[in-house]
Amino acid sequence: MPPIDPAALTADLIRCPSVTPEEGGALELLERVLSQAGFTCTRVDRGGIANLFARWGEKGHARTFGFNGHTDVVPVGDEAAWSVPPFGAVVKDGILYGRGATDMKSGVAAFVAAAVDYVTDTPPDGALILAITGDEEGDALDGTTALLDHMDQAGEAMSVCLVGEPTCPERMGEMMKIGRRGSMSAWFTVRGVQGHSAYPHRAKNPLPAIARLMDRLASHELDKGTDHFDASTLAVVTIDTGNPATNVIPAECRATVNIRFNDTHSGAALTDWLRAEADAVAGDFDVQIDMKVKISGESFLTPPGALSDLVSAAVAAETGVTPVLSTTGGTSDARFVKNHCPVVEFGLVGKTMHQVDEQVPVDQIHQLKRIYSRILADYFA
Amino acid sequence: MPPIDPAALTADLIRCPSVTPEEGGALELLERVLSQAGFTCTRVDRGGIANLFARWGEKGHARTFGFNGHTDVVPVGDEAAWSVPPFGAVVKDGILYGRGATDMKSGVAAFVAAAVDYVTDTPPDGALILAITGDEEGDALDGTTALLDHMDQAGEAMSVCLVGEPTCPERMGEMMKIGRRGSMSAWFTVRGVQGHSAYPHRAKNPLPAIARLMDRLASHELDKGTDHFDASTLAVVTIDTGNPATNVIPAECRATVNIRFNDTHSGAALTDWLRAEADAVAGDFDVQIDMKVKISGESFLTPPGALSDLVSAAVAAETGVTPVLSTTGGTSDARFVKNHCPVVEFGLVGKTMHQVDEQVPVDQIHQLKRIYSRILADYFA
Repeated sequence: MPPIDPAALTADLIRCPSVTPEEGGALELLERVLSQAGFTCTRVDRGGIANLFARWGEKGHARTFGFNGHTDVVPVGDEAAWSVPPFGAVVKDGILYGRGATDMKSGVAAFVAAAVDYVTDTPPDGALILAITGDEEGDALDGTTALLDHMDQAGEAMSVCLVGEPTCPERMGEMMKIGRRGSMSAWFTVRGVQGHSAYPHRAKNPLPAIARLMDRLASHELDKGTDHFDASTLAVVTIDTGNPATNVIPAECRATVNIRFNDTHSGAALTDWLRAEADAVAGDFDVQIDMKVKISGESFLTPPGALSDLVSAAVAAETGVTPVLSTTGGTSDARFVKNHCPVVEFGLVGKTMHQVDEQVPVDQIHQLKRIYSRILADYFA
Repeated sequence: MPPIDPAALTADLIRCPSVTPEEGGALELLERVLSQAGFTCTRVDRGGIANLFARWGEKGHARTFGFNGHTDVVPVGDEAAWSVPPFGAVVKDGILYGRGATDMKSGVAAFVAAAVDYVTDTPPDGALILAITGDEEGDALDGTTALLDHMDQAGEAMSVCLVGEPTCPERMGEMMKIGRRGSMSAWFTVRGVQGHSAYPHRAKNPLPAIARLMDRLASHELDKGTDHFDASTLAVVTIDTGNPATNVIPAECRATVNIRFNDTHSGAALTDWLRAEADAVAGDFDVQIDMKVKISGESFLTPPGALSDLVSAAVAAETGVTPVLSTTGGTSDARFVKNHCPVVEFGLVGKTMHQVDEQVPVDQIHQLKRIYSRILADYFA
């Protein structure tokens, strides 16, 4: 099989309008390419979401290298603001434009190309697994989780996994991720008793209570950070009442906080802390405080070691830059993979992800493929 | 001239649809009645508002008793919710219904009837002034203020003044007002720098600042009250942001407070205090806090003495109840009159003011007229 051009494959993927939850032809395209190269492909569809599981080599081999990525993309937003058709895969001056150009059709194309070329040229004593989902940008309930559930049931396992998300803030090679902070939000509703501003003692104003609660939460130092993590943060993102009348004390108000937390916390422990703070304030002010919590992801860490050394060395060899081992940023599907095997993330520069005129230099796609190829060679060496 | 039936006059006034700023025929009606009884009437119209100045007796007499009131009314609100036409002046089971029945066409009718009957029956050695405005429920910029300006320019003066606003919470006679708390509102806008919830150190979140500021203001004890005044109060009435995204730190938020203050404060001193608190918090949080203030009225007190004794004795004689000397409640035009002469307020039960099916017992209007008549008799005795 001839080598795959990862930039051409990226362009083909961009032409598939795979806005979550649409498959858009992207996974079908990859299934054809991988099947031709001798991969065993299984569509793992669940809850209206398409996912693709592909393995080369022996099932359950002790040396199984995994790649994880997604072909779904976020909506184009204001299409009129784009200078090119968002699904047109236009190349201008060596730059490939389109939705998914960086997040992360280029990453998927690079690891598919690297994997196919590697097994074609130097079939290893080992196995490769590609777990590619169509639900990373959405709720992610039926995406990588569905693939991992399928693997558990089918006796499939990755020894290690590399997620191909963009990880470099500005310059190719400068950062890889060995963990991520967790993320959760809490919605508070404070209920008092409405009344006239002239007679506050006849009302129970919920606003001083919400002000006190938000002040307490925002002032609290969650931790000072760890060797591998920044300090956890809590951001009050909104406080709302909607009372236009200066002579009325409102009955109710609402506030929302978002917490990004490192591995000194869990979503459950933070929920308990928030509830205790709310209860204390509710008692002090004699109001009712309801709380709803959503934990988007727990924090995780793959401690620096064999896997991060492998990736770091390959990045340094191809780019001349030794990547920082970072745990910054939002969530990714690595939060699910970490329950399965050691996982790290490395990909290209993510500056334009989710933006209008999302774009990637064609050279960078080729460079990323070379890095992934070197990682495979070193892993199976 | 035959005695005036104050209930019939109230009904006639209710039939004039004098929703601020409409005159609605109400002041024209009163001008006819008062002119017939020998009052010198002057329309004092300003800024599109009609006002009526009426004097009986010698201009500048050292014993000039004044009444103040308003014929404008608040809108009917949801007319479908009324069980009677709001301007129909329907009487059912001895109850007169209509917008302005208590606030305060009955009060105006009662003092007009008392004044006309008194000067007809026993012309006193003194003068009476009736200062009746069509702008009490609105901005009050061209109402009683216009009448007082006119009096200053024309060399007219009241020795004392009784405002006929409803003052009794539940039972006729139980309360008169010898002062009022001041009222002011302050609108705060806190401006920071927008950012991503995952990177709060790159943003400047205005919400912790507004929470701290509102907590400080709401926790502060303005005073403990005085002999004649309740403690001053500050109510946070709204905090708003309008940010639906949990991953975004907003650039701006807003809050409003309303202060009801006794005579240990002035609007200017409270403005300085609010500004100082806002500046302190703005410095602590490195955000910008803008503040806009509106002082609706300064506090005032007519200390208990000859005028309150006069009114109290008349109320007690007619109702058997000695009125409490109160300074509670919102603002009234007494806040303007107090710069002119000693002023107190006494009127009927205000329970249904501003409500649907506003109503007054017909007997209560007659009782109020008798009280006003007795006050005049005692004053000129």
